[in-house]
Amino acid sequence: MENLSTKAAQNLDAVKKNKPLIHNITNYVVMNYTANALLAMGASPVMAHAPNEVEQMVSFAGALVLNIGTLTDDWVHSMIIAGKKAAALNTPIILDPVGSGATSLRTDSARNIINETKVSAIRGNASEILSLKDSDSKTKGVDSIHSVEDASNTAKILAEELQTTLAITGPVDLVTDGERTAHVSNGHPLMSCVTGTGCAATAVIGAFLAVDNDTFSATATALAFFGLAGEVAGEKAQAPGSFMIEILNALYTITPEKLEAGSKIEEY
Amino acid sequence: MENLSTKAAQNLDAVKKNKPLIHNITNYVVMNYTANALLAMGASPVMAHAPNEVEQMVSFAGALVLNIGTLTDDWVHSMIIAGKKAAALNTPIILDPVGSGATSLRTDSARNIINETKVSAIRGNASEILSLKDSDSKTKGVDSIHSVEDASNTAKILAEELQTTLAITGPVDLVTDGERTAHVSNGHPLMSCVTGTGCAATAVIGAFLAVDNDTFSATATALAFFGLAGEVAGEKAQAPGSFMIEILNALYTITPEKLEAGSKIEEY
Amino acid sequence: MENLSTKAAQNLDAVKKNKPLIHNITNYVVMNYTANALLAMGASPVMAHAPNEVEQMVSFAGALVLNIGTLTDDWVHSMIIAGKKAAALNTPIILDPVGSGATSLRTDSARNIINETKVSAIRGNASEILSLKDSDSKTKGVDSIHSVEDASNTAKILAEELQTTLAITGPVDLVTDGERTAHVSNGHPLMSCVTGTGCAATAVIGAFLAVDNDTFSATATALAFFGLAGEVAGEKAQAPGSFMIEILNALYTITPEKLEAGSKIEEY
Repeated sequence: MENLSTKAAQNLDAVKKNKPLIHNITNYVVMNYTANALLAMGASPVMAHAPNEVEQMVSFAGALVLNIGTLTDDWVHSMIIAGKKAAALNTPIILDPVGSGATSLRTDSARNIINETKVSAIRGNASEILSLKDSDSKTKGVDSIHSVEDASNTAKILAEELQTTLAITGPVDLVTDGERTAHVSNGHPLMSCVTGTGCAATAVIGAFLAVDNDTFSATATALAFFGLAGEVAGEKAQAPGSFMIEILNALYTITPEKLEAGSKIEEY
Repeated sequence: MENLSTKAAQNLDAVKKNKPLIHNITNYVVMNYTANALLAMGASPVMAHAPNEVEQMVSFAGALVLNIGTLTDDWVHSMIIAGKKAAALNTPIILDPVGSGATSLRTDSARNIINETKVSAIRGNASEILSLKDSDSKTKGVDSIHSVEDASNTAKILAEELQTTLAITGPVDLVTDGERTAHVSNGHPLMSCVTGTGCAATAVIGAFLAVDNDTFSATATALAFFGLAGEVAGEKAQAPGSFMIEILNALYTITPEKLEAGSKIEEY
Repeated sequence: MENLSTKAAQNLDAVKKNKPLIHNITNYVVMNYTANALLAMGASPVMAHAPNEVEQMVSFAGALVLNIGTLTDDWVHSMIIAGKKAAALNTPIILDPVGSGATSLRTDSARNIINETKVSAIRGNASEILSLKDSDSKTKGVDSIHSVEDASNTAKILAEELQTTLAITGPVDLVTDGERTAHVSNGHPLMSCVTGTGCAATAVIGAFLAVDNDTFSATATALAFFGLAGEVAGEKAQAPGSFMIEILNALYTITPEKLEAGSKIEEY
């Protein structure tokens, strides 16, 4: 079995050396924080959503990040144009289905993006991810999930059905591509008190996808990195304002060596 | 007369326990800061403005925050759709008429929202609030306001005419529903050096409206809470960058007990 | 030769005294940071982009800041409406051609704004600025620029052709109006690790243009001020999260006297 801690260090090192351009079509709330997170870790963020620009922009990118918070039909339309182009170029796409399951527009838009493009990975919380399944899915409903094992099996089936890597984040993150499965237990409770930490985690996965062809390892190691940044921040800050600033500091100061030593990824 | 300091503590406690969903249709400049302010105090923010989503989203919400900074006709249209639905559901609406009085678009949009929906409270500075009066208002013009008493009487008349609670914020905040009136003297001068502190105050009122049916006490106590956060921040930071971060910290660390002890609300 | 350090101090003092309204039509990523930078230094920012509002808004403004990051055709349309009105009122315009040269939409939009309005100054990196030249420009291509002298001569020719002041920012900033040329060597390496520092620099130039009729000195002295803020921030912060907050603090705490002592502007 591959050593994912070593892989995490290699991925971070590769981002810092190659500074991949990460094209984000994301929500208004987190644009600034996402750009700063990517810059701090050594990647090159660009935000661009014009329908007559996204094809050209994504052709320069190492990865495309699609995030449906503050969505409108126009923005989803641009996401699909960009996503089709990315798919044609074999550029990895990571989707953050913010609020999918909460409103019809969000659920429909997330499914639309999945159907119309070729998404390499999806990161969300459990209810967002489970909302993505089709009516003929073989997964059990939320009410039938009684254990970590149930959750894991459900995610594996859904990952196979959607032909993508799924990252279900929470106190412990679950990553699966249908074959391999890992738990990532890096993180800090204050992360849930800052807006955009989930979205920033998604963008960090985008940066790792740009340097690691293995979607499963890119996703798991990126979550370990972002979670470790939360832990480092939590040592310095006890409240969310300072904490969100310390996360940016940590994304900058965590070296590949520190990441290898601090990542908590358990494949099983 | 109700003890508003005790009420402030009860409202903060209720927000922390119930974590009400606050639906914001607000401006681009302050979306991130507003979401972080609401999260820090224990509420659950969501930003959503798509015309085909806002009715569904607001139906989950404890309050609706409408803010016309960076407005366009499309956004105001969405605000009115959301506001009509909120009114039908008896969900409280708080309006922040950013820049009303400065341009026709802003003045007309603010009045339009007031006429087309049912606004529970409005927070703005004196010129924004006074710009909302109709041509047949019985209030005196700005030039006729020579004292705190004049300002107070004008606000009371306008609150009755608009059938809403008004919060005119400044060095000392004035809150009135036409019958009851209070002054809130919490706050710090650096608040005017950070963008979005007024907008965040409006969102905090939204969170208190979600747990307190009495619009007057919800508004006055929310301003005391936000102003106290400014005071606590001002003890730690002497310049606006650090100060804005410390406000977020303070919204998280101020307990109901500290709020009861520190609120400076004078009803008269 | 004018003492530009003294002029820098005078400009900062004038901004603090007059608090000019700076109308920004800028990108989503940096709106909050730009507004906070302008507020911290003592100016009055407003963000407004509605096509039916920008003419009225810009008529109150001391300067207009146009920034094409996260552009769409609609936003560029509003920029041109606002820019025409500003030109009619002799209100200075500063353009930040974010990403010009990278995509056709950005290059075309930047040139369009230059052709349709009357831009007083343009700030960008070397590739953004060089992308603005017409096909019949007498400037040499990027490949022919082998020295600081080449770069300086190219910029002077382009400034004359575009009839504007150009600010090419990098480790050392180059400012020229075609006749006068200056190097500004204030700054800090961490500035490139924070999103929106370039955009904020552009807005600071806008604030200085509002109080200094000499576009060349306004631009050079604004860059010295913003660069000095980076230096002061770099003394307090070693990582980008804290650094971006300390820049805001420094914009607030740097006095005209400190700016005069610390500015590094070399005219030649």
